This record gives sequence, C-alpha cells and structure tokens, in this order.
Amino acid sequence: MRRSDLFATVSKESVSDADCRSEELAIKAGLIHSYGSGTFGYTHLGKKVLDNIEEVIRDEIDEVAQEVRMNLLQTSKLWKESGRWKDFEGEEFFHFKNRDDKDFCLAATHEEAVVGMARKFVRSYRDLDFTVYQIGRKFRDDHARKGLLRAKEFTMKDAYSFHRNEDKLDRKFEEMMEVYRRIFDRIGLEYSVVGADNGSMGGDTSREFIAEAEVGSDTYMKCRGCEFGTKNLEASECRECGSELEKVNGIEVGHCFKLGTRYSSSMNLDFTTEEGENKSVVMGCYGIGVSRLISAIIEQSNDDQGITWNREVAAFDTAVVLASEEEKACNKAEKIYQDLSEEEEILLYEGEMSIGEKFAEADLIGVNRKVIVGNNFLENGVIEVEDRTGHTELVKEVAK
Amino acid sequence: MRRSDLFATVSKESVSDADCRSEELAIKAGLIHSYGSGTFGYTHLGKKVLDNIEEVIRDEIDEVAQEVRMNLLQTSKLWKESGRWKDFEGEEFFHFKNRDDKDFCLAATHEEAVVGMARKFVRSYRDLDFTVYQIGRKFRDDHARKGLLRAKEFTMKDAYSFHRNEDKLDRKFEEMMEVYRRIFDRIGLEYSVVGADNGSMGGDTSREFIAEAEVGSDTYMKCRGCEFGTKNLEASECRECGSELEKVNGIEVGHCFKLGTRYSSSMNLDFTTEEGENKSVVMGCYGIGVSRLISAIIEQSNDDQGITWNREVAAFDTAVVLASEEEKACNKAEKIYQDLSEEEEILLYEGEMSIGEKFAEADLIGVNRKVIVGNNFLENGVIEVEDRTGHTELVKEVAK
Repeated sequence: MRRSDLFATVSKESVSDADCRSEELAIKAGLIHSYGSGTFGYTHLGKKVLDNIEEVIRDEIDEVAQEVRMNLLQTSKLWKESGRWKDFEGEEFFHFKNRDDKDFCLAATHEEAVVGMARKFVRSYRDLDFTVYQIGRKFRDDHARKGLLRAKEFTMKDAYSFHRNEDKLDRKFEEMMEVYRRIFDRIGLEYSVVGADNGSMGGDTSREFIAEAEVGSDTYMKCRGCEFGTKNLEASECRECGSELEKVNGIEVGHCFKLGTRYSSSMNLDFTTEEGENKSVVMGCYGIGVSRLISAIIEQSNDDQGITWNREVAAFDTAVVLASEEEKACNKAEKIYQDLSEEEEILLYEGEMSIGEKFAEADLIGVNRKVIVGNNFLENGVIEVEDRTGHTELVKEVAK
Repeated sequence: MRRSDLFATVSKESVSDADCRSEELAIKAGLIHSYGSGTFGYTHLGKKVLDNIEEVIRDEIDEVAQEVRMNLLQTSKLWKESGRWKDFEGEEFFHFKNRDDKDFCLAATHEEAVVGMARKFVRSYRDLDFTVYQIGRKFRDDHARKGLLRAKEFTMKDAYSFHRNEDKLDRKFEEMMEVYRRIFDRIGLEYSVVGADNGSMGGDTSREFIAEAEVGSDTYMKCRGCEFGTKNLEASECRECGSELEKVNGIEVGHCFKLGTRYSSSMNLDFTTEEGENKSVVMGCYGIGVSRLISAIIEQSNDDQGITWNREVAAFDTAVVLASEEEKACNKAEKIYQDLSEEEEILLYEGEMSIGEKFAEADLIGVNRKVIVGNNFLENGVIEVEDRTGHTELVKEVAK
C-alpha cells in the first residue's frame, strides 16, 4: 500500500489525554480512534493489527475447536434460565427495553447463548465431546480507562467445550492451555500462568494468563524461574520450580475455566449416557482478550521511537522508503515495492513527507524492516536494509 | 471435517414456525439457530457460508477501499451533531441509558461514526479521495420476520467514500457499481439494478440491487431484457433497452447512495482546496446486506432436496460419502478424503448415519459434489462422482 493512499490518523503531536503508554502509542500511531467512553474505532492500520492477532488465534485454535458466531443482542430468556438476569441490576451489563417493552441485554459473555445453541444439538453421548469458539464483540458498562485495556466495547475470543465427564474436560483443558501458550508465544507476549484462586497448580478449576505490565490492574507473584505465578501475595517461592517470586502488576489476557455443570444443569443441557442415564453435560470455557492484547503487546514492546511488534503482529512488516527525488531512485523503489508486494503487503513511502518524517512514522507504527533507496543507491547501487534496532545491511538486491 | 465431529443442528424434522422457504432451509440445514426476536446464532456450518460470502466481498472490494472497523455501541454525541438523535424516538433504533445515565445507542448505520473518524484525518485536498469499508453487525428494533431477511441484529458491509468534488464521487459510484456486479455474480445471485426514486437511470443519486424473490418486501418492475429495473410501477417498458417490464417482488441486497454533503456539512468534515478555500467533503455510501444475502441466495437457489448454492458459497463444495462397511471401502474413502483435503475443506460421511441419510443431508446443506465409495468400488474399483443435479460420473481416481 502506498502511504499516500493509507487512511490512518498518524499524529505528529503528542496525545494529551491518554492515560498509559499503550493508549498514547495506539492513538498517536493512528491504529485506533477514540469515540470517548471506552468505545473505539479501528483505522485500516489498527484493523490490520487486530486481524493479524485474530489470524494467529484462528490458526492455532482451529486445530481443536470449530468457529461459530453468536448474537450480541440478547433477550432475557436464557439469562433468566441460568439465574443471572437478576445479577444485572446495578452491574456492568448493558440492559434495556425495546420499543415493545421487551427486555434485552448486550452480551458481556456467551455462556447462556452457547448452551441455548448446544442443547438443540446434544442428545446422546455420541454427540459429545466438542468445542466451539467465536471471535467477536463483548460489551461491559465499565468505567473506561487505559484505552483498549478497559473499554465498554471490546473483542474477545471465547471458546466453550462440552464433555461426557470431568476426565474429558481435564484433557481438553490441558490441550487448550497448550494452544494458549502457542498463541501468546507467536504474538511475542511474555506471560505467567497463574492459578486464579489458591495459587496451587494442582486441581485448579481456573488459570489465568497474565502479561506483566506496570499499568496492569492485576497484582500477582511472578516466578523468576518458570512460567508459573500465583495470586497469593504471601507466597515467596514458586510451587512448581522453587524459584523466587516477585510482586508485579499485570494484564489478564487469557482465562481457562472449568465450568463443570454450572450452566448445563440450570439450563437443562443434558445427554443420555451409554448406559441410558440422563446426565448434565460437563463444560469448560476459555477466553482471550483480543483487543486488549494490542495494548498488552504495546506495553511490553515499545521504545522511544514507538511500537516494536513482531512479524506476526505488525501491520506492515516491511516498508520501502524512497529517500531521494531522483527518477532513478523512484523507479528502483517502485520496482522493489512491486516485487516484495508479491509475497506480502508492503508500505511504500514515496513523496510528500520528508525523509525524517518517513523514518519516524515507520518506527512509530512498528515497521520491522525499512528498505531505503536513496543516495547510497544512486552513488553505489546499494540499498540499505535497516531493522527496527537501527542495524543496517547494505545489499544489491532485497530478498523477499 | 468428519461429519461426526461437526457441530451442526441439521434436522430431520420439518421446521414448523419458519415463515418462508429460506428460513425453513437455513434452520433445517443447521446453518443458524434462532434465539427468538430476530436474533440468530450461526453454527459452524452457517459461519462457513457467511465467511465465504464475506470473502468474496473482501476480495472484490479490497481493490477499491480499505477495511476499517467502527464501534457498535455509540454515544449520542455524533448523532446530535448530525441532527439524527431526535429521529430515534419511537423509531427502529435501540437506544438506552447506561448506569451513569449517559445516552447510548446501537449502530443501525455508521455515517456519524465514519465522519467522526474521518475528520481526524482529513485536512487538505491532498488527504482525499479515499474509501473505507467494514463488514460488521448492525441493529434495528424491527419487527422480526422471515429469518435473516428481517432481523434485529444483522451483518452488513458498509463502505463510505470521501471526495473533493461531485465528479470524483460520480466516478467512484460507477466503480462501486461494477464491484457490486462482480460480487453478486460470483455468489450466484440474480439481481436487478433499480433507480431508487424516479426509475430513471440518468442522474440518480441512489441505486438499489434487488434480488427477485416471491417473499421479498420490495415490489418493482424488472426488465426482461437487461439488468435494470424500476420502482415506478406504472412503467411498462425499460428505459435502458426498451424491453418489457414485469412486476415482481424482490429483496434489497445492495444500495449505492450519493450522500453529497449531507453529513460532512452538519458535522464539519471540511478540507482546504488547492486554492485555499474551505469546502465540505463530498461523500458516497454503499451497503450490502451480508447476512440477508444468505436468505436471498437460498430463496433463488433451492429444490425439493434442499439448498443449491454455488461453489463460492457452499460450506462444503465436496463431500466424500462412504456407502459400504467393508474395510477396503473405508480405507479408500479415508484416502480420498485426505487427498482432497489438501486443497480445500471436505466433509467426510463415515459410519453411524444410513446411506440414505448421508445423501439427503448432503443435498439439504447444499454440497455440490458427492464422491461415493461403495459397492461399485468394491466390485469394479470405480468411484461414483455425483453432482447436485444427480448426474453421476464413474471414475478410477477423483480429481482435486
């Protein structure tokens, strides 16, 4: 894409009302547009980052679950069955009556909806086990702050697994934990796996994936030696490896939870066992805060120049920067742009902006590799390939 | 995917409360799950069909526009600027106060939101022209009926173009019309292009794409000779080609609209011209009813056995049907399934269901090609490849 065609609100000014580094950089880099009140729009640049993260998630999770899509606008019916409708009063759910005076709410979570769908499908043990997921919007009437970290409208990946018994759930739970590790590793996030309640790893019904970050609202004990952590702030050494723990703040980015029969029993999601008995389906649920991940990554990966995401996440991994007005250089930059574009989408900085502005913006938005066509090309036929750390290689041809 | 693993609510019973053929088939084929009140969930099967349609749209529209994503939960601020907030009373917009007594609404359309985002970006004529689009949810407090044709929550593709002047808008409008033709052609929809108001094709500010269907709520005059139609029910011959017109019902599936400065002037989306003047940006908007397309296609493409969509749209273009219990046949079916799966996702019918059930279900959900491994293979080494019309070819090897 040519920079001159890009719809992006990249700003030279500092962002005055941002209350953390990730919000400041996301707005300054033109990824998102704040509509106020914790609601955001994504520019093309931001949408590409979000798409890249979603693609990694789908790529990994499609191995173990099927994608579905549930409704965001929900009637009170299923929430009354589960017993949670009454919890809405004064809480962080958006609920309202429509013009026919019927009760609706916006989905803050989808346990009720997925059980409503699954019970059309599940009759016998032969219909189990299965796992479904979706990537979509959620709504919470939260007091918005810190940009995408706490928003009224946000994107989540939520998965739900359905089982004949606890053993099958346990196996799925571990499988999902592995999927989560691969996802967070691929997008370049450092995280701890934290037992949600008692901090012990054995027999937990819930584990959180927490990314260390100063601005995070979760405080936990992070292990210096392994991936585990604990919310027990009294603990001093890791139960898994014995290493020292340190107290840090973090952002909850994922959560795996053994629901058991909490929803299936209240909502009559039953199945007939091989022996002909009637039993409640055993369930698990697994969430990832997708839009929040953008902020979590930026919090962990930025420098004075801007965002430093990895190849999987960057909106543009490579930018071709024209650093001369000579026709020969223009033609060469255009040629390189066309060649590289055969493999992936490339950002091309042509005219209009100064060379300094081009460099600064590419660093700000997190381009990993700048292919520079300027005086060095005109004088020596050499192209400069600069990585995000400033390290430059001189090449005759740019490798795809 | 193995049929036994598929989460789909395919039903052998008829669907009693459906009020048109497309709703009946979408529910019976297990594409969607009705939550009541015009809100639906998509099973894996339905999500695949929706994804396929979205993919065709993106594939065509990415050539002429950039994808963005806007907020579904909106504050009253921008709607008050455009003057449309007062239109909400008693109308088909969901609006409510949150727990802090602030006014919110659910996006029924995104003109306000896109102008709010664009005016952060547009300063001078150099920032124009550009076009953005999104594919996402919309909400309307409509009296739900006919399944996905009139739902409270639905999916739309909406695009917005921003121009220096009317000429540039006119050119974009024609370009977008061509994109729309390619999209609807690829998904196998028959449509008319209808001037929305006066039926004349010259100088119209709006054109609708309408798919002929008995259940459609739009009545129009369809030309028997060309693609055009008119809403002027008094007209007897086509203004474009002179052919006879016939009065039919249809479903509005697309709409291209020249907004002009309606929103940019009320919401101060201005730019500085080359001559240094201040002018309002000239806008166009372009919608496609994405989820409604599923119903429109089914209305036009079904037979006694079920849905008959084309290759671009079908959830599974090919199913491998095992029609024998012999090990040799099982192995062959598995081998063909593995081979074909290298190219695209294939549905494999193994055990459990009867052969008749397998055939009936594949036809119901709109599989285009059944690769049958049964007695003919065991006796003669021959595989039967049956298309959706029942035409069968006998082959030794199945081509990918």
